[in-house]
Amino acid sequence: MTQWLSNEELLAWRGLTQLSSRLQTDLGRQLQDGHGISVADYEVLGRLHDAPDGLRARDLGASLAWEQSRVSHQLSRMQRRGLVRREECATDRRGITFHLTESGRTTIEQAAPGHVDTVRTLVFNALSPEQVTQLADLTGHLLRHVDGCPLADAHRAAVRASQT
Amino acid sequence: MTQWLSNEELLAWRGLTQLSSRLQTDLGRQLQDGHGISVADYEVLGRLHDAPDGLRARDLGASLAWEQSRVSHQLSRMQRRGLVRREECATDRRGITFHLTESGRTTIEQAAPGHVDTVRTLVFNALSPEQVTQLADLTGHLLRHVDGCPLADAHRAAVRASQT
Repeated sequence: MTQWLSNEELLAWRGLTQLSSRLQTDLGRQLQDGHGISVADYEVLGRLHDAPDGLRARDLGASLAWEQSRVSHQLSRMQRRGLVRREECATDRRGITFHLTESGRTTIEQAAPGHVDTVRTLVFNALSPEQVTQLADLTGHLLRHVDGCPLADAHRAAVRASQT
Repeated sequence: MTQWLSNEELLAWRGLTQLSSRLQTDLGRQLQDGHGISVADYEVLGRLHDAPDGLRARDLGASLAWEQSRVSHQLSRMQRRGLVRREECATDRRGITFHLTESGRTTIEQAAPGHVDTVRTLVFNALSPEQVTQLADLTGHLLRHVDGCPLADAHRAAVRASQT
């Protein structure tokens, strides 16, 4: 039996989804206008920039909380555009890793200051240190919950089973 | 001069973006597997379900915090799939409004219980009433800030001007 959301829960839920959409739109426009890249491109470039030894697709996906299929498509597109390159290393047990190309490095280094300024303008200028901690705590708590959520997996399994 | 994010800000920022991605992925999979619709479809159907007199594209966009071009594309696709219909009303000064079709109504009414159960499982089961209020307050506060953000507009204007 479904227990519908209370008014306060609906407020929180719509707040979270609207805020995500709105930030995605504004940040995406700034990156596209200024540097010809999407928010997804930026996030991948940023993660690879922080990983001088490269990243496996699996670890990149975990760090972005993306599905593996999304990571693969995104990396293929970025490879074609010359922003990332893949490296197969016989002596490295990690197998295939992804790295920034020179063009990818230049792009993220040029885009980062404007992007961070926009994030600060849109988000952190409006938050007190206590609110920043609240936001970090709430989102961290929910991410750990979702990651370990057996009910969600059970639900997915049930949905799939109902279709076979 | 860019002021880079502090560790706590970075934690909050990555928490927010990862949580959004992760919820989008899980909720999208559940809706797609169970009902053949995306999260975006669901959100539009839900807003129209709550508006028996229909909605103008502009009001729908504001309620979802979407850009107008995204709303238009989404509505066109959903019209082609028979989920929504447009109505042009000469006597209604609102002009063109969008409404659920019978198929759209059936779809949202069938999808809603499972979707709400998943939202409850992934999010609200893990939050105390105080945390729900915190989340509603934080996201509401940030949305009002972003909506009235003159710096963001100024920044967008500057980016555009620099390209002409």
